[in-house]
Amino acid sequence: MIRIAVDAMGGDVGPAVTLPASLAFLEGHPEAALLLVGQPELMAVHPLYSRLQAHARCQIVAASEVVTMDDSIEVALRRKKNSSMRVALNQVSEGVAQAAVSGGNTGALMAIARYVLKTLDGIDRPAIASQLPNAAGRATTVLDLGANVDCTEDHLLQFAVLGSALVASIDDNPAPSVGLLNIGEEAIKGGEMIKKAGKLLQAASNCGDINFFGNVEGNDIFKGTTDIVVCDGFVGNVALKTSEGLANMIGDFIKAEFSRNIFTKAAALLSYPVLSAFKKRFDHRRYNGAALLGLRGLVFKSHGSADAFAFERALNRAYDAARNNLLERVRERIAHAAPLLGAKRPATLIEMVPVLATLPADPHGSTTAH
Amino acid sequence: MIRIAVDAMGGDVGPAVTLPASLAFLEGHPEAALLLVGQPELMAVHPLYSRLQAHARCQIVAASEVVTMDDSIEVALRRKKNSSMRVALNQVSEGVAQAAVSGGNTGALMAIARYVLKTLDGIDRPAIASQLPNAAGRATTVLDLGANVDCTEDHLLQFAVLGSALVASIDDNPAPSVGLLNIGEEAIKGGEMIKKAGKLLQAASNCGDINFFGNVEGNDIFKGTTDIVVCDGFVGNVALKTSEGLANMIGDFIKAEFSRNIFTKAAALLSYPVLSAFKKRFDHRRYNGAALLGLRGLVFKSHGSADAFAFERALNRAYDAARNNLLERVRERIAHAAPLLGAKRPATLIEMVPVLATLPADPHGSTTAH
Repeated sequence: MIRIAVDAMGGDVGPAVTLPASLAFLEGHPEAALLLVGQPELMAVHPLYSRLQAHARCQIVAASEVVTMDDSIEVALRRKKNSSMRVALNQVSEGVAQAAVSGGNTGALMAIARYVLKTLDGIDRPAIASQLPNAAGRATTVLDLGANVDCTEDHLLQFAVLGSALVASIDDNPAPSVGLLNIGEEAIKGGEMIKKAGKLLQAASNCGDINFFGNVEGNDIFKGTTDIVVCDGFVGNVALKTSEGLANMIGDFIKAEFSRNIFTKAAALLSYPVLSAFKKRFDHRRYNGAALLGLRGLVFKSHGSADAFAFERALNRAYDAARNNLLERVRERIAHAAPLLGAKRPATLIEMVPVLATLPADPHGSTTAH
Repeated sequence: MIRIAVDAMGGDVGPAVTLPASLAFLEGHPEAALLLVGQPELMAVHPLYSRLQAHARCQIVAASEVVTMDDSIEVALRRKKNSSMRVALNQVSEGVAQAAVSGGNTGALMAIARYVLKTLDGIDRPAIASQLPNAAGRATTVLDLGANVDCTEDHLLQFAVLGSALVASIDDNPAPSVGLLNIGEEAIKGGEMIKKAGKLLQAASNCGDINFFGNVEGNDIFKGTTDIVVCDGFVGNVALKTSEGLANMIGDFIKAEFSRNIFTKAAALLSYPVLSAFKKRFDHRRYNGAALLGLRGLVFKSHGSADAFAFERALNRAYDAARNNLLERVRERIAHAAPLLGAKRPATLIEMVPVLATLPADPHGSTTAH
């Protein structure tokens, strides 16, 4: 039986979303169980709480604190040691749950996950990976989406290995193609780091660690040129946020135009099949649930603004990852790629004493400081 | 009379696009003149050539060579000294034309423009700036879109100053707002450079050099949160290309869905006003014509794949910039911001002997090498 720990208090509205999503998930997955982590008195207000409390495959785990969206990493990690986010992650580190899902503060989630679960050997920093719909009718996995800035070529190789394990666990594809996000304006190519990354990824491909396609550009994400696109976290986050902004703008525009007058409203009715197909294909709620890859445990992040439908999608992803042995696949790929992954990393005090790596560099800590 | 030098041979098809666009432009701008630069024997094949040749406000300027899309910067800059691209830029440097427009190889255009026109004092590297439609019904100016990688905070300040001059020359807005593209995942913010850039832009704002709004995220570009968004060229190019890929995917999907069967095709007919408004608002051809800012002359870049309608839009932009004295506005703003612009730049041999800066760092040269 696969158990998933749910941070019931995370996200914009906490239980109002996580509880209905959890119930629907349990009904759809007879072979799964949930650990609902949160403040019982606050969860109990929700009408579905008693059903979940009584559910054979649901266990309530009390946590007295909640990490808010405004909490600094310092506060989240060092003060709120009994937060629903932390306790949910503890379930994974203690082996009680195979995966954890939270809609809370991303920075805090990353910091606490690194502290509680640690990263796998060969991985410096966990990456956030998500699927984006593409024109080929499938989805492109992009990482890193914001956990890491100022990445080196070594990090990009780590992302390629992690992403490959994730996609191989989702699809039947044992050798998913990896593209390196670059700019291609004729003779202007990316800077030095990207050039080195290209060489490193090619070397890894030659060893069979990954299936490297080569450079890709921003539009290739939506063309579906490769199964996976790797990039620095800053660039990935900008690409993701920009896409979301454009999709929202287009969607709002179409809605406004169809609502303009009685004639356009009639046209909207007739266009229902088209608009319905459009909404289905590009509904970002379907793609909710980003994987934090590289930790010694499976962790999934839901959008803070997710509704119950979207949060349930995140639970599904966590379940599928656990069922398809994502963690073992990641370990295998890392082991295979160990020579190239380990090649350039000098042993430093921080590397040798992992807990030092998790200390915030300043009071409003950042997990990206080395 | 404002004269614009047109690289008639640039872009995917050269004269087949540039000639009709030029004729339409002349008909729409009775107070403008064009210098059509290219290989007369190749231009003469086009049916409109004789009309342009005879046109009172059009002059044919012969250039014996053409920079192709595959030419390295080395070849473009050092060998093809009589290319249509180079000769068009020469018209600006010689004061014969107030602006130049080319649809050719971006890397070559940037390199040759830097060599022929030089950058203004206080500007390290020219930036490519373009307008993107936003949800506020206006357009957001974003730079840099790919000319510069590995930018420092000083470059971002230069982009802010240049972008402000551009927007002030387009709109009636004397103090356009500037946003610094960052990632905002709760406590995870951009790296060190972005933090320094934020401080520098704030300092410039306090001096009245620019109107700094603060950090913005990728979706703010399409929300229209600020008039201008500044970012590293790599990040900007990825954001632009990703947006193009998404818009294409959505457009293709809608087209395919409406074409699915007789019922959806009828719906498409009825939805004509909506689809027409959509196409008009998001037709990227309307936004064709990126400004190369920071040079001692106005240069505009058209998409290589632009059609005549799009290329004419680029000519319009060049004309408007010249008519609104963009170059003088840029000089004024740079002069105003001189203390902060010049503050951190050490005098080096390259700075003191500008032509050294234009030498390619390697045989397949890059203009971004210092």
